[in-house]
Amino acid sequence: MGVVTDRRRVVRVRAGARAARPDTLAVEEPLMVRLVEPGPVPGGGTMPAGGPAPGSSALTLTMRTPGDDFDLVAGWLVSEGAVAAPDDIVAMRLCPDEENTVEVALAHGVEPPRTRAFATTSACGVCGSDTVVEVRAGLRWPVAHDPVTVGADVIASLPDLLRERQRAFDRTGGLHAAGLFTADGEPLYVREDVGRHNAVDKVVGAALRAGALPAGGTVLQVSGRASFELVQKAARAGIPVLSAISAPSTLAVDLADECGLTLLGFVRGDSMNVYTGADRVR
Amino acid sequence: MGVVTDRRRVVRVRAGARAARPDTLAVEEPLMVRLVEPGPVPGGGTMPAGGPAPGSSALTLTMRTPGDDFDLVAGWLVSEGAVAAPDDIVAMRLCPDEENTVEVALAHGVEPPRTRAFATTSACGVCGSDTVVEVRAGLRWPVAHDPVTVGADVIASLPDLLRERQRAFDRTGGLHAAGLFTADGEPLYVREDVGRHNAVDKVVGAALRAGALPAGGTVLQVSGRASFELVQKAARAGIPVLSAISAPSTLAVDLADECGLTLLGFVRGDSMNVYTGADRVR
Repeated sequence: MGVVTDRRRVVRVRAGARAARPDTLAVEEPLMVRLVEPGPVPGGGTMPAGGPAPGSSALTLTMRTPGDDFDLVAGWLVSEGAVAAPDDIVAMRLCPDEENTVEVALAHGVEPPRTRAFATTSACGVCGSDTVVEVRAGLRWPVAHDPVTVGADVIASLPDLLRERQRAFDRTGGLHAAGLFTADGEPLYVREDVGRHNAVDKVVGAALRAGALPAGGTVLQVSGRASFELVQKAARAGIPVLSAISAPSTLAVDLADECGLTLLGFVRGDSMNVYTGADRVR
Repeated sequence: MGVVTDRRRVVRVRAGARAARPDTLAVEEPLMVRLVEPGPVPGGGTMPAGGPAPGSSALTLTMRTPGDDFDLVAGWLVSEGAVAAPDDIVAMRLCPDEENTVEVALAHGVEPPRTRAFATTSACGVCGSDTVVEVRAGLRWPVAHDPVTVGADVIASLPDLLRERQRAFDRTGGLHAAGLFTADGEPLYVREDVGRHNAVDKVVGAALRAGALPAGGTVLQVSGRASFELVQKAARAGIPVLSAISAPSTLAVDLADECGLTLLGFVRGDSMNVYTGADRVR
């Protein structure tokens, strides 16, 4: 478990008066994810002991709030479309000699996330419509036929339920949160991060590691806005309902529509906007 | 100029009642940035006519709100440390045959942003302290010695000045904004985007293209939180003061401290927190 908050000295200016005092902040630290080859190694286990594993290669470097790092890495692998079952990940470990590094070994036959496909294409243009069709076509678990329905009163209760479970937000005001809930509003996994994408990856990774993907019948509540990327993460985890406290973008709505995912925004008090899949909201 | 907002049909649920109506949303679309070789081409000019330029390669693909695309690309190149003067960019154009694609030609001797350096390192760990020292060591324009001072009353006025210039936010609630101001609170460049990093890149790119980098003596006001990456963008543009409406992260504070940049957060009403460089706030 990492350090989620830390203190820094701050000068508070209020109505012209200054006062120095300590302030609690959300921790942001880099996380390096390295891919290692699985298999027996001297000394036993599936990972070499100590040091960086020979032949390991960097998969990604991200800024994140420490804690739930294995969830973050697992969920990121799901979001990238590389991993779908707990056994697709043979092992993960914190690099014993270096901080902020997770080594992950994937099962034989599991392709790691590719170097961005765009780097190899010779095509010139991209457009939103092609992008959403491409994401939908690549889904392992179509969410369009998920028969779940959710009461509008349950949706309305989720922002407060999420906030109650945000351990660090109230101390810092600087953390995003994401929570996966049952259709009855029971919390399954709630995670926090300075990055809203990371918070969702942590939730998805927790579900994967518990064997709970695809997450049919669930609702993902997020603390901020709904972008294309958040809808993509929900769809790739098989989550049929995404609810955001703030606004969605056009491409988020278009992707949700294409995938048959229910997208809600501006969920505040007893009011909410249903952008797609309104049939699932009772 | 792209389409910044668009309409989608929404079902609004309020106190149990439903009503279908159109809703205005912030547009999010992909943008492909391609690098082309500069130099004379058949037909004249510095870019081949029509189609994707032969031999061009993809630099990056990002989701953004259309509009100010040249500013976005230019600012991104500054933020990546590749570009520092208007002449470093020989030409930019919208790809004539394909939407959402900008082709950019860099001057001879200007290195394009590298493929992420981490992909080639064999080191295992990363840490925040090393990261901030590395960024500071790579700055073209140290901001530590910028003698500017700014009145607390000026800082307090910037969030409202920014909001007044956000043309699209009030219609969507879904756009971030960034604005570069003089130390007297005069607006220089204000830009909007669904992504807060993009909004800052657009502002930095506008300044670059106007020959106004390094942006000594200025204040960058942002609508959201202050992350490591936003401080890095400000420092790389030579901006000495970054003011955020919400919370900074620990690494944002540590990087601002290392670079000698003044960082403010929670700027609301006549109250604000000065995390680093308080000597610049009068």
